[in-house]
Amino acid sequence: MTDSNIQLDKHGRLKHFLTIEGLDRGLLLDILNYAESFSGVGERAVKKVPLLRGKTIANLFFEPSTRTRTTFELAAKRLSADVLSLNIAHSATKKGESLLDTLQTLEAMHCDMFVVRHANSGAAHFIASHVAPDISVINGGDGRHAHPTQAMLDMFTIRRHKGDFASLRIAIVGDILHSRVARSEIHALSILGVNEIRVIGPRTLIPKDIQTLGVHVYHDLETGLHNADVIIMLRLQHERMCSALLPGESEYFNLYGLTEKRLSIAKPDAIVMHPGPINRGVEIDSQVADGKRSVILQQVSHGIAVRMAVMAMTMGNLSNLDPGAVDAHSH
Amino acid sequence: MTDSNIQLDKHGRLKHFLTIEGLDRGLLLDILNYAESFSGVGERAVKKVPLLRGKTIANLFFEPSTRTRTTFELAAKRLSADVLSLNIAHSATKKGESLLDTLQTLEAMHCDMFVVRHANSGAAHFIASHVAPDISVINGGDGRHAHPTQAMLDMFTIRRHKGDFASLRIAIVGDILHSRVARSEIHALSILGVNEIRVIGPRTLIPKDIQTLGVHVYHDLETGLHNADVIIMLRLQHERMCSALLPGESEYFNLYGLTEKRLSIAKPDAIVMHPGPINRGVEIDSQVADGKRSVILQQVSHGIAVRMAVMAMTMGNLSNLDPGAVDAHSH
Amino acid sequence: MTDSNIQLDKHGRLKHFLTIEGLDRGLLLDILNYAESFSGVGERAVKKVPLLRGKTIANLFFEPSTRTRTTFELAAKRLSADVLSLNIAHSATKKGESLLDTLQTLEAMHCDMFVVRHANSGAAHFIASHVAPDISVINGGDGRHAHPTQAMLDMFTIRRHKGDFASLRIAIVGDILHSRVARSEIHALSILGVNEIRVIGPRTLIPKDIQTLGVHVYHDLETGLHNADVIIMLRLQHERMCSALLPGESEYFNLYGLTEKRLSIAKPDAIVMHPGPINRGVEIDSQVADGKRSVILQQVSHGIAVRMAVMAMTMGNLSNLDPGAVDAHSH
Repeated sequence: MTDSNIQLDKHGRLKHFLTIEGLDRGLLLDILNYAESFSGVGERAVKKVPLLRGKTIANLFFEPSTRTRTTFELAAKRLSADVLSLNIAHSATKKGESLLDTLQTLEAMHCDMFVVRHANSGAAHFIASHVAPDISVINGGDGRHAHPTQAMLDMFTIRRHKGDFASLRIAIVGDILHSRVARSEIHALSILGVNEIRVIGPRTLIPKDIQTLGVHVYHDLETGLHNADVIIMLRLQHERMCSALLPGESEYFNLYGLTEKRLSIAKPDAIVMHPGPINRGVEIDSQVADGKRSVILQQVSHGIAVRMAVMAMTMGNLSNLDPGAVDAHSH
Repeated sequence: MTDSNIQLDKHGRLKHFLTIEGLDRGLLLDILNYAESFSGVGERAVKKVPLLRGKTIANLFFEPSTRTRTTFELAAKRLSADVLSLNIAHSATKKGESLLDTLQTLEAMHCDMFVVRHANSGAAHFIASHVAPDISVINGGDGRHAHPTQAMLDMFTIRRHKGDFASLRIAIVGDILHSRVARSEIHALSILGVNEIRVIGPRTLIPKDIQTLGVHVYHDLETGLHNADVIIMLRLQHERMCSALLPGESEYFNLYGLTEKRLSIAKPDAIVMHPGPINRGVEIDSQVADGKRSVILQQVSHGIAVRMAVMAMTMGNLSNLDPGAVDAHSH
Repeated sequence: MTDSNIQLDKHGRLKHFLTIEGLDRGLLLDILNYAESFSGVGERAVKKVPLLRGKTIANLFFEPSTRTRTTFELAAKRLSADVLSLNIAHSATKKGESLLDTLQTLEAMHCDMFVVRHANSGAAHFIASHVAPDISVINGGDGRHAHPTQAMLDMFTIRRHKGDFASLRIAIVGDILHSRVARSEIHALSILGVNEIRVIGPRTLIPKDIQTLGVHVYHDLETGLHNADVIIMLRLQHERMCSALLPGESEYFNLYGLTEKRLSIAKPDAIVMHPGPINRGVEIDSQVADGKRSVILQQVSHGIAVRMAVMAMTMGNLSNLDPGAVDAHSH
């Protein structure tokens, strides 16, 4: 599962997008730069480019997620692709068909790309290692493992606000243990060379060996926020709240909820991020979520641009893209 | 909720379409005239115009309705827009996300229009008063309050058959109390200046203060149908039939069901309308529903034309429309 | 239900596609030839032809089937049509609306084609005999009666591998009694003039009067496979396995499961087909299903080409089709 070579073709170009781990800085910057060129499409009168016209993209959601599915669907439509949305849990598997049979059937229908969301870590890698050579796989979130498009839209948002990564202190707050978002973000931030990555949360929700990834661990929120440039709040899953890992919601908010007062401990121009949907009054106070340092809704917009970039890159269809649009934002 | 100014932009043009109440006659006629120009699209070999190409329209159905959702979806596709159909009840709200957070998320995805169907009166107004300034909201039915596109497709159907509104006697029959359709129709008919509006139904299903809207109340169907030009039958909701408000289905049919014999009391060229789906043998006899004076299926066709008109008008995209097509039908 | 004239217009052209029964050889060859011309579309960079642009195709699935629905949806999209997918079981019928009212409503929305899947034999014929004259109906499987597009994709697959039909021995293995696929295949193979059709299965799963269709019945698999050119395995429905008609799964596999050893009884170049989804280890061994004589996945690809052909033919929109593409494969 840590073998990321499967993601690249023999020329080193992105073929699948499964995990941030193992990708190099140049490739991550390419994603950010192409996303810049797509970020204007959503604001045009005609929000469409013909890059993937006549391609068929299958959304394979083994785990429901309206928000992620919708952004992938919109990204695909704005690239002019045809989209099939399959809720796998409710269809073929009911008939007892195996996952590989389902995949091979979709391949035989000449699908060009699978966007995969699955509750099991490694599902997207498994699928990518079994599909036909002309198909690209994009990981839309697999178990606790990775959520690479979420990480890249976060990187995009950080670069928009902070420019260079080298000097930044980033704090990631919450349930690190169960978060595929946190894992992917830590890899992306490391590769892009930020100054410092901090993870903040209760002992029960921080993996024991996380320091091997080069992060600093804080169990006290206020200490951890000191001098931070970027604060990334994680969503607390409802199922965790009811478990033995955590006290109640209000106790969690008392210890790890982001309030205006705590935000003031970070740098004066610190930005606040959250992958959504937010739990108001659990991990974040409404005043902060709706405040002027929150960039949460911008993350959503950037998510479509980043997904368009990754889809177009993995399909190798960027030769038609106006290079001026990209160059204007290249670093 | 009676403040309809929110529907108009500062130039008096339609920005949202939430309720008939408070709109002026000229604007209602504009809707009918634009709908005329769109009504031919459904009969063409290529049923598409490029007016809303590259726009994203989100169908937000908090209450299920295959028929209404389908006509809005077809109207959007025939205007070449991209359509997102979100069954909100089964998605974000399950994760505990608030309505406003869902809306802001869809705005951040650069949706251009929300079509809203909701069980609560006032939901569409609430949403329209909270969306970003560049988004249009269309009410696809909210609680008992309003169903303005249904009312306008009924007006369109009446004008097609009867021409001028001024001389007409219209009878609306059934459960007036719970009907958003009836409310919207009464407002539209008043604004368009019909001669007389009658509401017919049992005491338990007629609002006490309805005369303030300028309508005449009848509890006897046959008296009320006398000399009527147009008969609008309302759908009897199954949940009412089982309640204390009503006797059984067959008793209701005996008192208020439209039969050929009762239809003969109205004018010889009277037309029969129904918003559908019809309950055969409950509010209407099959002979009447399928008879030559029934225009029920024409209402469905007109529904798409009217929804195309309202969508194009609220998006301000009618400058590309061939004005000849519109002028030919202008009054 | 055996009156197939309803399928043809007065010029003898395909208007609906409901059953293979009663069609002539020339028409089946036309379908295969047009499908050849479409089979390249799925392999192009831009998998789209504009033949049905601006048409509205409604998928009416009264019985769920992700695979069949998906191939019809892809076929329609690759012909550039707009597709409505309606899960009828969960919508209008809940409101008590009759089937005919639902159909008339969809007609009033100017749908051009209904693709119908229904648990009742004869449902597609019933619908075709009641729709407006400008609407085409395609049977996507009705009860035990017919599944004509599946039969034609199987014929397409056989012709691709075997060329001429006249000399072929075809064995159909499994639950013949409940299989609409088997019925449609037997008709198609007869009309196309194969040398011999064999049906193989337990006594409980072979209709008593099947010999009247000109087939030979075998209850012993190995005897029946002798010298076969084509082996069509049927899917064993799970609900049958638990019934009195059959012993358990492993007993069935022992008697009728296709293994490499049994396959060797057929001709050395025999091909193995299955409509999918397959039950590995029930009616077919994985080694055979994934082996080099299996053409099961090719059947899926061909299914889209055949459905595109039938959709374009019934809509009468083939005058725009490059005849060279068709002629190249005409027989």
